Amino acid sequence: MRKLKRSARLVEMTQYLLSRPHTLIPLTTFAERYGSAKSSISEDLGIIKEVFEEEGLGELHTLAGAAGGVKYTPLVRQSDALQFVREFCRLLEQPERVLPGGYLYMSDLLGRPALLQQIGKMFATAFAGRELDVVMTVETKGIPLAYATASWLNVPVVIVRRDSRVTEGSAVSINYVSGSSKRIQTMSLARRALREQSNVLIIDDFMRAGGTIRGMMDLLQEFHANVQGVGVLVESADADEHLVDDYISLARLTGVDPRTREIRVSPGSYFKEADEQ
Amino acid sequence: MRKLKRSARLVEMTQYLLSRPHTLIPLTTFAERYGSAKSSISEDLGIIKEVFEEEGLGELHTLAGAAGGVKYTPLVRQSDALQFVREFCRLLEQPERVLPGGYLYMSDLLGRPALLQQIGKMFATAFAGRELDVVMTVETKGIPLAYATASWLNVPVVIVRRDSRVTEGSAVSINYVSGSSKRIQTMSLARRALREQSNVLIIDDFMRAGGTIRGMMDLLQEFHANVQGVGVLVESADADEHLVDDYISLARLTGVDPRTREIRVSPGSYFKEADEQ
Repeated sequence: MRKLKRSARLVEMTQYLLSRPHTLIPLTTFAERYGSAKSSISEDLGIIKEVFEEEGLGELHTLAGAAGGVKYTPLVRQSDALQFVREFCRLLEQPERVLPGGYLYMSDLLGRPALLQQIGKMFATAFAGRELDVVMTVETKGIPLAYATASWLNVPVVIVRRDSRVTEGSAVSINYVSGSSKRIQTMSLARRALREQSNVLIIDDFMRAGGTIRGMMDLLQEFHANVQGVGVLVESADADEHLVDDYISLARLTGVDPRTREIRVSPGSYFKEADEQ
Repeated sequence: MRKLKRSARLVEMTQYLLSRPHTLIPLTTFAERYGSAKSSISEDLGIIKEVFEEEGLGELHTLAGAAGGVKYTPLVRQSDALQFVREFCRLLEQPERVLPGGYLYMSDLLGRPALLQQIGKMFATAFAGRELDVVMTVETKGIPLAYATASWLNVPVVIVRRDSRVTEGSAVSINYVSGSSKRIQTMSLARRALREQSNVLIIDDFMRAGGTIRGMMDLLQEFHANVQGVGVLVESADADEHLVDDYISLARLTGVDPRTREIRVSPGSYFKEADEQ
């Protein structure tokens, strides 16, 4: 690459960092890329760091020394997150979303890339400090959330299938009881899809009693994997029992009246600590 | 927002534009955001435009006049795309990917966010000129590809379900014959998931005869929707008949030998024109 001026470097470095979250980039990479002295690169990074932090885009950590470099950690400010989720709750409370069984129609919202990216960034914020090898979800609706989260965390996604006729070589299948339907269902994961001992973040769109997530946790035991966290977009307060204790929800469905079509949704456990302050 | 210096503005505007592809942003938005004169903003955009175009990140179009502004169109250079796909083909040719029935195990590759983003950007490049309201796919493996594409195109995603027990209100179901298994299968889409007359880009991970994509096209007829394009990641050359004529593939599977585990994959129709030049 030809030698770049500071203004051009700032544009290029910004896009380079944004597209490589949670990745340590040696300063020499930039110095060689732009034909610049490391001292100039350090100054550039100082400018970028200031903007990223002031605008609430996340943090830029500089590690000194031979193995050093710079790492971009995407983070959502708590105030921005709360404002976003309040608006999301209002969207969820639209009367036409009531589905049979007290479910909410959310597919339209889960189809919007910009909204998903914000949700994914919030999960990535909540689990930024955990050691993670992979984000896992079960088909179908959790998939876009898992990808949005994984792309901010820079880890791959593993998708658990709901049928056992998957042609992906030897697979591990387990039966689980879906909390809502009380029916026995099957989920399976190809042996080759997940390395043993992996550190896993589970993401899903909806949780009532937690049967599906409990199923994923049981499946992970078969892989001797470690569940490092559980994140759900919407949890339902309407559950007789809880099969999962430790999780983070972004929103909490506290009431659905199929007759009046009244829906009540409030910010979830993601905000618990902030609320208590 | 407080008044920003040029260096800080360049960082902020770069991230602002990158996170809003295919969106017209009035110059006044930036001018007000940074407390700057429009002439300064125009100069900033000139710098960003130059870097984006030199680095192959895409184009920045400035529209003059009262309704004017700036729009970022993500584009992948043909040479970068070909280099990427050649590497992708090598990955696909790893012998351990052979699955029963001449399929390829691709789930690990489809689990990598950075790889998906590049694939999505290539589809977004191929279909950048089409008028699109939505990207559509059928569960499960096409979903991450559809989202990656849609996020670069700034349109929502609609997911067709393979079962008809979907609790999303009234739905349209159709039967289709999967080209590979020759079995009759069902796919369905909730009425409310897609507005009539929508302009749709179909994305999927794999195509042999095209039965599944043909099914999606038939389903779209029920919504009086217009298929504006079809993009598949890998097409198989091993098909007796073709149910879909007009599509773009990124890679083409020309041979799988289950005994020797030899796989041959080459760049797909995406590169046809470039090859002919």
